[in-house]
Amino acid sequence: MAANPVLAHSVRGNWVENRHRGAICVSDATGNIVASTGDVAAEIFPRSAIKSMQALPIFATGANARYGLAGPAIALACASHNGEPAHADLAAAMLAAIDLDESALECGAHPPIDPSARKALFAQGGKPSALHNACSGKHSGMLAVARALGEDPKGYSTRRHPVQQRVKQAVEEVIDHPLTEGKCGTDGCSIPTWAAPIHAFAKGFARMATGEGLSPDTAAAAREIFAAATSHPFLVGGTGSFDTDAMAAFDGRLMLKFGADGIYCGALPEQGIGFALKCDDGSVPAATAMVAALLLEISSPTPDQAKILQTRARQHQRNWAGHEIGYIEATDAARLKL
Amino acid sequence: MAANPVLAHSVRGNWVENRHRGAICVSDATGNIVASTGDVAAEIFPRSAIKSMQALPIFATGANARYGLAGPAIALACASHNGEPAHADLAAAMLAAIDLDESALECGAHPPIDPSARKALFAQGGKPSALHNACSGKHSGMLAVARALGEDPKGYSTRRHPVQQRVKQAVEEVIDHPLTEGKCGTDGCSIPTWAAPIHAFAKGFARMATGEGLSPDTAAAAREIFAAATSHPFLVGGTGSFDTDAMAAFDGRLMLKFGADGIYCGALPEQGIGFALKCDDGSVPAATAMVAALLLEISSPTPDQAKILQTRARQHQRNWAGHEIGYIEATDAARLKL
Repeated sequence: MAANPVLAHSVRGNWVENRHRGAICVSDATGNIVASTGDVAAEIFPRSAIKSMQALPIFATGANARYGLAGPAIALACASHNGEPAHADLAAAMLAAIDLDESALECGAHPPIDPSARKALFAQGGKPSALHNACSGKHSGMLAVARALGEDPKGYSTRRHPVQQRVKQAVEEVIDHPLTEGKCGTDGCSIPTWAAPIHAFAKGFARMATGEGLSPDTAAAAREIFAAATSHPFLVGGTGSFDTDAMAAFDGRLMLKFGADGIYCGALPEQGIGFALKCDDGSVPAATAMVAALLLEISSPTPDQAKILQTRARQHQRNWAGHEIGYIEATDAARLKL
Repeated sequence: MAANPVLAHSVRGNWVENRHRGAICVSDATGNIVASTGDVAAEIFPRSAIKSMQALPIFATGANARYGLAGPAIALACASHNGEPAHADLAAAMLAAIDLDESALECGAHPPIDPSARKALFAQGGKPSALHNACSGKHSGMLAVARALGEDPKGYSTRRHPVQQRVKQAVEEVIDHPLTEGKCGTDGCSIPTWAAPIHAFAKGFARMATGEGLSPDTAAAAREIFAAATSHPFLVGGTGSFDTDAMAAFDGRLMLKFGADGIYCGALPEQGIGFALKCDDGSVPAATAMVAALLLEISSPTPDQAKILQTRARQHQRNWAGHEIGYIEATDAARLKL
C-alpha cells in the first residue's frame, strides 16, 4: 500500500525537520467523496473527535429533558475541555442533576490543561479531580444516560455496559458502518473507541449536519447537538483551543472537533459536507495545521475567519529563550479543493 | 522519492493507531554502511544527539585542563539532563570554575524535566533557572571554550561567535562532511544546529569511537569524551533516562544519545561501528523504540542488557485512570542485522 502524502511539515531555520503524513476525506451525506487525499478507507480510532455522535443517546433516552440538560451541558458533553472553572463547575452541576458527584466519574483525574486554571488550582492548595479531566462533560452525559436507562451507573465506561452499547449503536447509525470487537481499544478516558474508515466519519458528520439518511429523532438530536456545540464553543474547548476559536469565528457555519492522536472531524452544515482527517503519526499540532489549511480552501472564510485559520495552518515556534526557531505548516497537499 | 519504512507503530487495544517512519544507518569508521533502512542520505538536524562531538573544542582549546573539567563535567557537557540537583549543581560548579554564573547561560530557563526535582524545586519556593535547562552542561562547556579562547562570553550561542565556529569545525572533522548556512537552524537551547546526511553522523560516531580517520589530538579527545559519558551515565540523562539506563547496563560498550525530534546517535566501540537514526515525524518515544530494537539486534546484549532494551522496544501505555491501553513498539523493519 502506498504511503499517505506529507500533509504537514516543520521547518527549523531554512530546512525541513519533520514530516507528517495523513489522509483527509470530505464527503456529502450520501457518502459521495467530494475531495480527498491519502487512504481514506483506512480504519482509524476517531477518539474524542466524535463526542458529538457519542452524545446522541442523551437525546434518544430522554435524559436531556428529564435532567434539564440544556445547550451548555450538551456542548460540554461534546467537549475536550481545558478544565477551567466554567468547565469543571458545569460538569459538577450535570452530576448533581442526576444525584451523583465526581466520585461516579470513571475518566480518571488530571490537572486542568489550561495553564492559568492549573496554576490557580495548585495555588489554592486544590487537587486535580476527575471534573478537570478533559472528558468530564462527556462522562457526565453518559452517566445521565445510565440514569435515564435505569442502569447501575457503576461500570458505565466499560465496553459491555448498556450505556456504551447505546453509544456504539448511535455511532453506527450515523456513520452507516458497523463497529466490531476486532477493531476496538480503550480511550484515554477509559471508554471504548471503535475503528472505522475515515470516509465513514466524514459521511457521518455530513449526515449529522444535514439530517439526511437519519431517522427523524436522530436528525433532530444531531441538529440540537451541533447547535449546542457551535453556540457554546468555549465549553467545547476553552482558552486558546482551536476548536473554540474556529467555531466562534464561524458563528454556526462550522462544527469542528479534534481527537487525540491527530484526528479532526467536523462539518460545514450550509454546504452539506462533513470531513475527517487522521495524521498517521498522531501529532495533534500537525493535524491542526492540516485541518486549518483544508478549511481555508473549503469553507469560503471571511478575512477574519481566514486569519484565525492561518494562525494554525502555519504555527510559529519559539524556544526556551524566546527565539523564533521555525514553524509547523500544512503542505499544499492538504489544501484540497471542492 | 519513496517514503521511509514504518519503523515503529502504536497499538491501541487490538488495532494499530499511529505509524512512525524513519531511517537508520549503521556505519564503520570508513563510511562503509554495514546496515541501513530508509533514506540515509537525507540531511537531518542532529540536535542534541551530537553533544559529544560539540564537546571536542573543550579539549582542542585546552579548556578541560585549564579549568579542571574532569570526567563528570565532560559527561554533563554531553548531556540532555533532567535538571536534578546533581546536574544543576555540577553546571553551577563548571561556571564557577570560569568565574561565571548562570546569568551567562544563553539556553533559557525551564523547570527540571525530572518530576521529583521539579516538585521539590517548587515546594521550596524555587524558580526554574537556566541551570535546570537540559543543555546547561553543554552551554557551560561552551562558555569554558569562550574563556580558553579569550573571547567575550556574551553571544557565545550565536552562529558567528568563535565558539560556535569551533564547534562547527569539530563536527565537520568528525563527520567528514561540510556544514553550510543553507541548512542551518536554531536549536531549542539557542545554539545553531546544522543539517548533514544521516550516514555522515553514523560514520562520525564510528570515527569518534575508534579514532580512525581523526587527528591524534581529536582521537584522544573523542576517547576521553566517550569514556566520560559512559562512565557517568547518570549525568548524561538522569532518573528514568533511556540513555542513562542503557549506557549503565552496557558498562562502556555503548555510547548512546538521543536528540529532540526523534534522533538517536551512538556507537558500539568494541565493534567499531556508529549508528544514527531519525524518526521522520519527530516522535522521541517512537525513535526510542526504534533504537532499542536496533540495539537488540546489533549489540549482542546480555540477558540483563536485553531486558533494558526490551522495555523501550515495546513501551506499554496507561491512561489517566491507570488502565493499560496499548503500546508503542518497533516494527521488524527496525531490527537491522549486521
